[in-house]
Amino acid sequence: MSRYKIAVIGGTGPQGRGLARWLVAGGHDVVIGSRSAERAGATAEEIATRTGADVSGADNESAARTADIVLVVVPWNGHHELITSLADALDGKLVVSCVNPLGFDAQGAFGLGVEEGSAAEQTQKIVPGARVVGAFHHLSAVSLWESEALLDHEDVLVCGDDLEAKEVVKELAGCVTGRPGVDAGALRLAAQLEPLTAVLININRRYKTRSGIAIVGIDR
Amino acid sequence: MSRYKIAVIGGTGPQGRGLARWLVAGGHDVVIGSRSAERAGATAEEIATRTGADVSGADNESAARTADIVLVVVPWNGHHELITSLADALDGKLVVSCVNPLGFDAQGAFGLGVEEGSAAEQTQKIVPGARVVGAFHHLSAVSLWESEALLDHEDVLVCGDDLEAKEVVKELAGCVTGRPGVDAGALRLAAQLEPLTAVLININRRYKTRSGIAIVGIDR
Repeated sequence: MSRYKIAVIGGTGPQGRGLARWLVAGGHDVVIGSRSAERAGATAEEIATRTGADVSGADNESAARTADIVLVVVPWNGHHELITSLADALDGKLVVSCVNPLGFDAQGAFGLGVEEGSAAEQTQKIVPGARVVGAFHHLSAVSLWESEALLDHEDVLVCGDDLEAKEVVKELAGCVTGRPGVDAGALRLAAQLEPLTAVLININRRYKTRSGIAIVGIDR
Repeated sequence: MSRYKIAVIGGTGPQGRGLARWLVAGGHDVVIGSRSAERAGATAEEIATRTGADVSGADNESAARTADIVLVVVPWNGHHELITSLADALDGKLVVSCVNPLGFDAQGAFGLGVEEGSAAEQTQKIVPGARVVGAFHHLSAVSLWESEALLDHEDVLVCGDDLEAKEVVKELAGCVTGRPGVDAGALRLAAQLEPLTAVLININRRYKTRSGIAIVGIDR
């Protein structure tokens, strides 16, 4: 497996931190990005302690510029502005969108309408020169950080229009689950993958658990 | 478990026929509905032969009128007109919407935009007096008909606003999978469940398989 230089934008949040941990454990060179370089450095140190490997931290833009692959793991609120501000740094990169546009009210979680179809397609529209892939939407942040074992009962669903980029991300998924990500189709399928997280959040509330998705019937 | 009188609207299609088979096997009194009572009767006979139990057939409206529970298993194309034509017969019933509004092109399957959010919500809007539940979107028609064993690696995701109706449908799901359906939240979550089928169809094409969904992390 290739060793990549990977920036995790929003890497101080629970989901970003948890994903970063497994990418580091998988042997990749990871830089945590945050609006504050200082907070990024603190999380990088926390992950270094957890994994016993070197991890660095930087402001989001510096992190993106130094990386081959950029994971975007940020809240939907403010997404458009953030991607716009990073557009130059993301140009030409493999960008993995892990963003879930969700709303919450008394009835629970639900998928928000997105003009471009999905957060991933919004990113592609703002940065036409990026190779955008959607993935890692459905893994529980708690499991990502706390589990000692690979999350090998779960599947990472991967969508994208650039087949080579999609293969790379399927391979990265193996750092978390121990098996390649599942090809879910074109980038537009992010419109299905992202709000599916609302279903899992509702299940978690109803069953008091941390649920995940598995695809059955694939010969592995 | 209660024994219900269940109509399967669109029961001559592969999905409807496959679901009907398991509901019959689960001890329910099933009537196959079709635009043509004659074709409904032929499919009913086919299912009776497959299961060794009595099954009847009727035109869609007659089938709906005689039943306590009505499964709607029809193509998205023509859905609005069909539900409108059956509105009087569906009033006051537990209606299970199993409809997937999907499009297909050279890039594969994708979810169609639906003004009401989903086929299930469209049905609820056309028939305000029905208790609409969304379920059974993700089971392969081929597996439903051909499998000798319960589809016990798969989950039926169930959404709805009427909690009692949702419990009944979770129980019906057990006829197919051997375990209760999973509560995925309010009826509006049908907007996530329905187009998820596009992901499975893309996976089937890519991996040459019949894929399904399982929820991991639920204590059963």
